[in-house]
Amino acid sequence: MLDVNGRTYQLPKAPTVVVCVDGCEPEYIAQGVAAGSMPWMARTLERGTALVADCVVPSFTNPNNLSIVTGAPPSVHGICGNYLYDTASGTEVMMNDPKWLRAPTILAALSDAGKRCAVVTAKDKLRRLLGHGMRGICFSSEKADAVTAADNGITDVLAMVGMPVPSVYSAELSEFVFAAGVKLMQTRRPDVMYLSTTDYIQHKHAPGTPGANAFYAMMDRYLGELDAMGCVIALTADHGMNAKTGMDAKPDVIYLQDLLDEWTGPAACRVILPITDPYVVHHGALGSFATVYLPAGTDVAALQTRLAARRGIEGVFTRAEAAEWFELPADRIGDLVVISERFTVIGTSAARHDLSALEVPLRSHGGTSEQRVPLILNRAIPGIDRQRRWRNFDAFELALNHV
Amino acid sequence: MLDVNGRTYQLPKAPTVVVCVDGCEPEYIAQGVAAGSMPWMARTLERGTALVADCVVPSFTNPNNLSIVTGAPPSVHGICGNYLYDTASGTEVMMNDPKWLRAPTILAALSDAGKRCAVVTAKDKLRRLLGHGMRGICFSSEKADAVTAADNGITDVLAMVGMPVPSVYSAELSEFVFAAGVKLMQTRRPDVMYLSTTDYIQHKHAPGTPGANAFYAMMDRYLGELDAMGCVIALTADHGMNAKTGMDAKPDVIYLQDLLDEWTGPAACRVILPITDPYVVHHGALGSFATVYLPAGTDVAALQTRLAARRGIEGVFTRAEAAEWFELPADRIGDLVVISERFTVIGTSAARHDLSALEVPLRSHGGTSEQRVPLILNRAIPGIDRQRRWRNFDAFELALNHV
Repeated sequence: MLDVNGRTYQLPKAPTVVVCVDGCEPEYIAQGVAAGSMPWMARTLERGTALVADCVVPSFTNPNNLSIVTGAPPSVHGICGNYLYDTASGTEVMMNDPKWLRAPTILAALSDAGKRCAVVTAKDKLRRLLGHGMRGICFSSEKADAVTAADNGITDVLAMVGMPVPSVYSAELSEFVFAAGVKLMQTRRPDVMYLSTTDYIQHKHAPGTPGANAFYAMMDRYLGELDAMGCVIALTADHGMNAKTGMDAKPDVIYLQDLLDEWTGPAACRVILPITDPYVVHHGALGSFATVYLPAGTDVAALQTRLAARRGIEGVFTRAEAAEWFELPADRIGDLVVISERFTVIGTSAARHDLSALEVPLRSHGGTSEQRVPLILNRAIPGIDRQRRWRNFDAFELALNHV
Repeated sequence: MLDVNGRTYQLPKAPTVVVCVDGCEPEYIAQGVAAGSMPWMARTLERGTALVADCVVPSFTNPNNLSIVTGAPPSVHGICGNYLYDTASGTEVMMNDPKWLRAPTILAALSDAGKRCAVVTAKDKLRRLLGHGMRGICFSSEKADAVTAADNGITDVLAMVGMPVPSVYSAELSEFVFAAGVKLMQTRRPDVMYLSTTDYIQHKHAPGTPGANAFYAMMDRYLGELDAMGCVIALTADHGMNAKTGMDAKPDVIYLQDLLDEWTGPAACRVILPITDPYVVHHGALGSFATVYLPAGTDVAALQTRLAARRGIEGVFTRAEAAEWFELPADRIGDLVVISERFTVIGTSAARHDLSALEVPLRSHGGTSEQRVPLILNRAIPGIDRQRRWRNFDAFELALNHV
């Protein structure tokens, strides 16, 4: 038995794989199943446990991956976006460094308990956070050619997987994760493995389209192989994904910095988009969540009401409201949290977003409209409560405590 | 100038066509434009007026078509579904008959003012309601072979259109509407025309799929022809459309009658699904809206709270709340109005829904998740307020008062 962040976990009885499929709106699975692209999934949904859970808002990759591996919301683990605004220095700081992490991971606790752990992520940005405090194997597809025994607990990953290092903007970046997972399970049989993909495909391809179904068919084959090796598999997602365009197929953007500049004066407010990271080609740093730092003396309630009345805005929350409702660390969000609707995204200033790289109509995430995610276990759980609110960060509980 | 249901309309200055595209989630247009299937639409969105409006909830066909032609919500015109539960007789009664209509239509007022009007609908169920009190041409694709001068104000429609009577379950049923509209405009040049399609395609095909894009390409060609004839065109929709399945691609249904039977005793409550009509093959009478009649003495607030806590329920409203919030006629809805979430539908009893005819994963409507619809005018309106809440039943106002 392990106690991590106030929850109790049993030690794995069989090799256990927790999979976070980046941007996996549940509809991708429904369409993949309907198209016959996911035979393993179709059987698993019937014989195992299929729930639709809520992810953490902001429905972004890092906060949710950290929630899954800590079993806790961002108020506990501290990672509430890719970027943090340091009010003291007036600078935006990346939150990729483990120093921002406020809670231990279940993976670290398992490795402390003598269990052999392995983590494979698509992008390297997550690797250090996920592997923090954990002994074992931890590497990314993106930097698979640069692994060392000291840093990653493994060498020569490319030879093991039999694939070249994929482009950071490719379906192969995620395929590499699954292929590596299967090879690791075949050759080293870790007790616990965490696999985390990237949503490059989901940003470009809607559920049921050929590009999406091909991706999910690929995933289904690898998951079937892991299942055939006797693994317990819990699959969830960091967030969903929705089209974010107007009828003209162009991004439907509320340029919040421009709007606030108009209302309160140039640069009086500071809009932070925590989706921003070094890989913005596929979404132009446009998501459905922003946080705003206000100048002293602002009538917060009045601004909140005025913003909430804007077309395309789903909700505006004060810092205290957002911290409570979304379980966020109050000291790492702004004075307001702004969430846009299903088809709308929030930008800073029009001049600061380069949308020229968007080859297809924008699909993105970040808001409550992308909160629903799969939570699937390849084992039946008789009598499970289907009416309670399940979270994606219950994945380890399902995989360890209900098997 | 006309005064209809408390709003003022100017008489048409050019031939005016109001189009209600059944089930036209705005995303259908975005994807059609992105695919290059809608060149006329792409130009119109750029040069004309493109708004996303709210339809009436329940987001069903009849309430919204009647709202569009009366310029008023169901609280005024009385049509709040296909079915009404007559508590006096304990029977469910279809609301297709004009006797249920409580307000005059803009079309009737225009014909009274000497304007030549024409209405073409896909299904016959709407024809009598839409044409009530109006002199002029009024027929459906479905019964295009049975038109008479006395009943429809026209004869020999099939020869005029040059198409056979389409199947009631086909894309051609809607194409016939547009083809007839173009022929009517070419041959008789009505002052005002109302065209209303059916959502057979939208129930089966997601935005961006080949089946959807082909439908919208067809529509685009006919709209381009009407535009080329100098018509003012206002396009809106009765409701949106969403996938309504679980991850197994089967309908995600809350069988509300079964649930209430379990809670309150067999048949103590009466669940009405106002989507039910004689044409249920493509949706199995499953939508995201239900109304419930409760036995005397029920603790309404307690039941409301209990239902609202169920997975998949978006909201539960008392009769008074629903009547106020959704502008519904309080005497024609039950004691509770129940709305399900984007991916979930409400059924009565499992035994009463035949889902065997569903050939593809269910797509349906009825809830607030299908409330967003296009509101497009092929004329620019300088200075139009894009922040106000537009409704689909502002279509005649845009077409008549802003041109």
